[in-house]
Amino acid sequence: HPKSFSCGPVMVTMAHNSQSYWASIEAEIEAHLKQAIPVRPPVEVFEPMHHLVFAAPRTKAPALCVASCELVGGDRTLALATASALHLMHSAAYTHENLPLTDRPRARPAIRHAYNPNIELLTGDGIVPFGFELLARTVQNNSDRVLRVIIEMAHAVGSQGVVEGQYNEFLAFQSNGEELHDEKWLEHVCKKKEGELHACGAACGAILGGGSEEEIEKLRKYGLYVGMIEGILNGMGRNEKGLLEMVEKLGALALKELESFSGTKAEAISSLVEANLCNV
Amino acid sequence: HPKSFSCGPVMVTMAHNSQSYWASIEAEIEAHLKQAIPVRPPVEVFEPMHHLVFAAPRTKAPALCVASCELVGGDRTLALATASALHLMHSAAYTHENLPLTDRPRARPAIRHAYNPNIELLTGDGIVPFGFELLARTVQNNSDRVLRVIIEMAHAVGSQGVVEGQYNEFLAFQSNGEELHDEKWLEHVCKKKEGELHACGAACGAILGGGSEEEIEKLRKYGLYVGMIEGILNGMGRNEKGLLEMVEKLGALALKELESFSGTKAEAISSLVEANLCNV
Repeated sequence: HPKSFSCGPVMVTMAHNSQSYWASIEAEIEAHLKQAIPVRPPVEVFEPMHHLVFAAPRTKAPALCVASCELVGGDRTLALATASALHLMHSAAYTHENLPLTDRPRARPAIRHAYNPNIELLTGDGIVPFGFELLARTVQNNSDRVLRVIIEMAHAVGSQGVVEGQYNEFLAFQSNGEELHDEKWLEHVCKKKEGELHACGAACGAILGGGSEEEIEKLRKYGLYVGMIEGILNGMGRNEKGLLEMVEKLGALALKELESFSGTKAEAISSLVEANLCNV
Repeated sequence: HPKSFSCGPVMVTMAHNSQSYWASIEAEIEAHLKQAIPVRPPVEVFEPMHHLVFAAPRTKAPALCVASCELVGGDRTLALATASALHLMHSAAYTHENLPLTDRPRARPAIRHAYNPNIELLTGDGIVPFGFELLARTVQNNSDRVLRVIIEMAHAVGSQGVVEGQYNEFLAFQSNGEELHDEKWLEHVCKKKEGELHACGAACGAILGGGSEEEIEKLRKYGLYVGMIEGILNGMGRNEKGLLEMVEKLGALALKELESFSGTKAEAISSLVEANLCNV
């Protein structure tokens, strides 16, 4: 039962099954991405795109999209293009976040730049429309669902989602040369960056899989909490105080959203949160 | 008749009527954009978006979109959201093109920066998804046409359109610290930047207005030539040699695409090219 869980032997077996579930999803997304982004002419444009997309750190948003689709009874293939688009959007945001601009108040954590800044800027600018194109070409589903997914995606990655989170990070950098070590601030930034992306992934999976409005909203919230937990855990080390409690609180909220779902797919999807809670 | 035209008195009357036609279209696009981008919370995010969208130089791509829609018999309102989105995409590209990156080989022509680079980067990143959202929310038309328009737009502004043009400009800057003064190069860059955007505008207008495939393709080519002429004329001064002939050649090609259309709307749309040819 998702609400109360143990990190004992039962959990380990479940985790093992879940692991192979997630691994199979990740493999299909990877294959879909590789096929979607061939290195084709103009090679000067597509080679950096290919590189930056596959070099960007992975998030769980794409896999969550596929798992949500399956959880509401949809076929996995319905969600693969959207899962790929989620990773594309994330790669573009990550690339731009690490651009050396003249007003960066301090060096970002060193990442290896394979290309010079102008190319990375333009490549990010090319990836985003390509992601929307992938969505719009989803022919396996009805057009109204696809349009709804496009709106969800635009919202999640735009000015009221990921961009707002990045904006808040930048303001904090600017105001004191360091990130603000404030829990409310961190919660808001994680909500806007990782939270919105994962919420979008889970909601879109449910939309494409033909879920009810109630299922879509529950999975959207589940995704939001999963993303926030991811964001907070990634930022750990910056500030430990209170973060473990925040992760536990979010984990409980997340699992509550799954209460009305049952079966092995519900177990698998809940493992995303349970694995994190066992590790903290 | 669009193919052979004079710049005499008849042309002047026609140009006068056409002027009021274009002015009425521009006014409706402006009103649509203003209503689409209110300054709403978070104000720190939407105020720069509002500013940068209205500060970006105008192109004829949005008006061409509306005129194409009307030319094929569609109602103007069907094309207004797409016209607005075209200006949004152009504003984002323009904003990023003028970002002070650490590897810009020389100062770009001085433009007034109202915000610091990070904000301008993020604002551009927020404008693009918002443009796609505007498209996806076009409820006045059938979903399949709207999806087709989204694919057209993604293609025009992405790695095989505007971004490829910007990329080629950057390579030329990089190779010799100056733009390449080569006609073939200029033609290619103008084709990818202004050409693809205007081609997209004209094609999308025809799609949304219910034009036939033949009409869509003719108007796409017309838009391509119109955009290339715009790009070349904007760049005049950099290199005059041969450019006038190029403009005249493109103008003739453009008008040829309009031969099968007739009526006052055909006269109006052809005035975009004729006005330029009379001025050179």
